[in-house]
Amino acid sequence: MAKNSNFYPVILAGGRGTRFWPLSRKKRAKQLLALDGKQTMIQQTVARLLPLAAPKRFWIITNEDLRSAILKQLPRLPKAQVLPEPVGRNTAPAIGLAAFLLSRENPDAVIGMFPSDHVIADEKGYRATIERGVEIAASGENIVVLGIRPNRAETGYGYIEAGSIADGGAYRVRRFTEKPDAEKAAAFVAAGNYFWNSGMFLWSARTLVNALREHLPRTASLLEEISAVFGTGKFAPTFRKLYPKCENISIDYAVLEPRSAKGEQAGKIFCLPADFGWNDLGSWTALHEHHMGKSSQAAGNLIHGAGVFALNSSGNYVHAPGKFVAVIGVNDLVVVETDDALLITTRQQAQDVGKVVRYLDEKKLHKLT
Amino acid sequence: MAKNSNFYPVILAGGRGTRFWPLSRKKRAKQLLALDGKQTMIQQTVARLLPLAAPKRFWIITNEDLRSAILKQLPRLPKAQVLPEPVGRNTAPAIGLAAFLLSRENPDAVIGMFPSDHVIADEKGYRATIERGVEIAASGENIVVLGIRPNRAETGYGYIEAGSIADGGAYRVRRFTEKPDAEKAAAFVAAGNYFWNSGMFLWSARTLVNALREHLPRTASLLEEISAVFGTGKFAPTFRKLYPKCENISIDYAVLEPRSAKGEQAGKIFCLPADFGWNDLGSWTALHEHHMGKSSQAAGNLIHGAGVFALNSSGNYVHAPGKFVAVIGVNDLVVVETDDALLITTRQQAQDVGKVVRYLDEKKLHKLT
Repeated sequence: MAKNSNFYPVILAGGRGTRFWPLSRKKRAKQLLALDGKQTMIQQTVARLLPLAAPKRFWIITNEDLRSAILKQLPRLPKAQVLPEPVGRNTAPAIGLAAFLLSRENPDAVIGMFPSDHVIADEKGYRATIERGVEIAASGENIVVLGIRPNRAETGYGYIEAGSIADGGAYRVRRFTEKPDAEKAAAFVAAGNYFWNSGMFLWSARTLVNALREHLPRTASLLEEISAVFGTGKFAPTFRKLYPKCENISIDYAVLEPRSAKGEQAGKIFCLPADFGWNDLGSWTALHEHHMGKSSQAAGNLIHGAGVFALNSSGNYVHAPGKFVAVIGVNDLVVVETDDALLITTRQQAQDVGKVVRYLDEKKLHKLT
Repeated sequence: MAKNSNFYPVILAGGRGTRFWPLSRKKRAKQLLALDGKQTMIQQTVARLLPLAAPKRFWIITNEDLRSAILKQLPRLPKAQVLPEPVGRNTAPAIGLAAFLLSRENPDAVIGMFPSDHVIADEKGYRATIERGVEIAASGENIVVLGIRPNRAETGYGYIEAGSIADGGAYRVRRFTEKPDAEKAAAFVAAGNYFWNSGMFLWSARTLVNALREHLPRTASLLEEISAVFGTGKFAPTFRKLYPKCENISIDYAVLEPRSAKGEQAGKIFCLPADFGWNDLGSWTALHEHHMGKSSQAAGNLIHGAGVFALNSSGNYVHAPGKFVAVIGVNDLVVVETDDALLITTRQQAQDVGKVVRYLDEKKLHKLT
């Protein structure tokens, strides 16, 4: 696939990533951090898609807090296409707005919806998968979802039940399921025909616009009204006025679940297995494990600091750039330090870091969030 | 006892206190830190003795790294009496030099030797004990040591075996013993007539000078030579030249042990029980326990920071002034943060913190020591 195809990446970058507090903040969300290498997560997301689409094809949906930082990090992207939501309304209105905008520009546009804060090990495999997905999505009313083969009974993701095999290595989707309990998750993994929902979708602008009109008509007409004035002085005030009236709902719940309920054939949803080393870096622990896979450190400590002294210690993740770090007799800790905050937790409990942010929000300690 | 008595406090302040790294440094040793309240340890040491002796009576033996900071912290003390050792030579030459200097000024001087980094809960009781000790030390060739009643089988202190009871609530000392193993320590505590050696001694300048001449003649004559030129331009070069030639030995080992070997009566050493809430704050853990005794914090965490969020966490000591501290699912940790370093250890292992400093010394990472 060349850059002159109909592929348009739409990157959703409105999240906060509170589980990476104290490094992640409202104005410096997870996708703006360089958690894995020199580039930030969103820079990596764009960089790995650039061989498939010219910069002018990119759209980013974010919020007012993050927009200026994103523009700085991605100077080659068209400023007008980095859209700040006046309020967060989950994924359906966000990707829906992009669909209405792009259907005006190019009705044959194939939209790829991508989270902005995941890591991909095999970028070539990733692009090859997307190319196959774009072909499937280009015809008829097809919807493509990239599915990750589960390697553990994870309860934090939605699952896709795959049915019959179709062309291009894809499976017809039988059903989407919400985050399961541990027992269900184990059964899904054992069954072999379940995939994790990666949050990466492909569909034509026309298909998505039609689906929204069918399943979410009120929001669809609001989005159409907003998109109609794009490029004019009316856009900003219209966006600010009408977008908050959109339903606060995920695209999975609004479109994919009802579509899949039509049945495997009529639903026209395809799951494309994504065997390219995907990781959503959901917590400090996930980041630790991601890095440890790359480089085996002495005694399993991963310490970002100006120097290290480790004694009787293993499995620790410490982020304290510029500081000499001494660990003595401690195991499996996660310690993260910034100019104004210090987090001390364990690999086991790092998933609860978001609770700190909830507490700080409640106490209106805005400087720390 | 009024201030016009013969009591002269000599404070030994040459130690580094490496177990309080990263807060303690070569130029900011433990005694210069405000670990317990607003005053530093050495300021507290002087303040609690000032009702017994005028500022001009105080002598401080320290080193070149600490002298200027001590002068700043204690501006009322005579500068010439804050003496920086050219090299550390343990306690015998340090207190010995003070004895020779004071015996020239006032042969009846009763010298109190005090560490600079301990805490005392009951200052009135402390002064009353010293007053009784000064009386005993003023007569004959008596030596007085303040003994702490042991409340645990501590292996980190030397022990004093008390014999027959004497006047003024003191016991005649039968024997000094080095740091015992755990079994011996338990037996000492069970026996009931053993005390911890507090490192606080009282004796007349005459007594100490004579004892040094008897037990450490070579060092005694070097110290006499140095003290003979005190107050003249020759003092600094003589001190620098001769002091390094003194034996590197503790006063306990050089004088007290051989004296006590003469027997309970002939040794003339008296142990005065020190029931005034003594704590040598030997580690971060000791500091934690010292503070916890004062104020019962929620869930037993003691956190110095700009704010705290604690979840499923107890028994932690965190020193991160100015920072918001979040602890999640961690217990019994000691975490201490400075501008350039971060220490993460446990209450159990905090005694090993000195090993970090040894490592940094070896690696010549002087900025961090």
